[in-house]
Amino acid sequence: MSLTRVQNFSISLDGFGTGEGQSQNAHFGHAGDRLHEWMFATRRWDQSSGSGGVDDAFVRQFSSGIGAEIMGAGKFGHPGWHEDPEWKGAWGPNPPFHTPVFVLTHHPRPSIEMEGGTTFHFIDASPAEALATAQQAAGGQDIRIGGGPTVVRNFLAAGLIDHMHIVVVPILLGRGVRLWDGLEGLEKDYRIEVTSSPSGVTHVTFTRVGVRSQP
Amino acid sequence: MSLTRVQNFSISLDGFGTGEGQSQNAHFGHAGDRLHEWMFATRRWDQSSGSGGVDDAFVRQFSSGIGAEIMGAGKFGHPGWHEDPEWKGAWGPNPPFHTPVFVLTHHPRPSIEMEGGTTFHFIDASPAEALATAQQAAGGQDIRIGGGPTVVRNFLAAGLIDHMHIVVVPILLGRGVRLWDGLEGLEKDYRIEVTSSPSGVTHVTFTRVGVRSQP
Repeated sequence: MSLTRVQNFSISLDGFGTGEGQSQNAHFGHAGDRLHEWMFATRRWDQSSGSGGVDDAFVRQFSSGIGAEIMGAGKFGHPGWHEDPEWKGAWGPNPPFHTPVFVLTHHPRPSIEMEGGTTFHFIDASPAEALATAQQAAGGQDIRIGGGPTVVRNFLAAGLIDHMHIVVVPILLGRGVRLWDGLEGLEKDYRIEVTSSPSGVTHVTFTRVGVRSQP
Repeated sequence: MSLTRVQNFSISLDGFGTGEGQSQNAHFGHAGDRLHEWMFATRRWDQSSGSGGVDDAFVRQFSSGIGAEIMGAGKFGHPGWHEDPEWKGAWGPNPPFHTPVFVLTHHPRPSIEMEGGTTFHFIDASPAEALATAQQAAGGQDIRIGGGPTVVRNFLAAGLIDHMHIVVVPILLGRGVRLWDGLEGLEKDYRIEVTSSPSGVTHVTFTRVGVRSQP
């Protein structure tokens, strides 16, 4: 069974998945790199001196069993990217996805094939429609919902997420885009576990009750 | 040195310290008892079958070294309690504070002496003024800021909290009163530690850098 998953999605202690003032030079606005420093301190990213503990164990699930990603327009690029027909995304020539990636946008354009197996497709679709499209491209593997916070929240509200890994970083951003708004009672459908890490972050996993994972 | 502390203050995963719709019969509104079930499952509260682990260790710091509490009007009683001159609070004849308690209210009334050492005093004061008043009554011991979320937030915003123990309960309330609003950058002044408990809750402690605790 193909699951729909969220992996390594970082939020601040006050619940913001991105800061305010996003731009081409500040992908997460005033949050800067602070939501993701924990990730780059793992052995997966820093092979010589990174930590090999619980953060690393979680971070390595990012690609495992994933056949496609769905992301929001704001993850693909800065506000207004759709006005530049040559724009190929904020992720460099070899993006870290290595699968088909479906970008939700009201401004679809032709697909872009990148190095390393990533192909960006642009669709104007509801969460359920986007998921059906991604599943067709994923060869039976899982779908990763890549964010930003509005996209994750919309998929949660639509009841489409099977497994979710949230990382709470001990900072207070004060402003930006919240993950949790409007999700009252979400816990009823999930087994929730919380694991604090020596690095200071906290891993919160939501596993849908009754869903069968791949071995 | 007398510290200003927050102990056992529970919030939902989405940051609400109380639910919506508070009334005389629903002290935490639609949250019901869900924010505090973890506490009543400790050995401190259930001496015969409660858990003696990390939740119990934290919960027992509630009274330790405390000489007075400051609480908001909404913790003392339901909305509108000030219209009843006989109202003695929502905490029964022997409230669990056992010290002077300063209730912040725009409707001061004469002090009320309860059983067990709790005396309620009613003051219309800023956080700094209330703290000075409570310190005079505390005999050199620490002051507990008892909540609700607006009161804790106001004391944090005023820079008056030295030590804070927050308990994150893995539920999403969706609505109510948030603790974290408007506290951007709070982490700069504190050492923050996070400890997940087998019970499912997470203890988050803020300890002000450079403050000396009692031994």
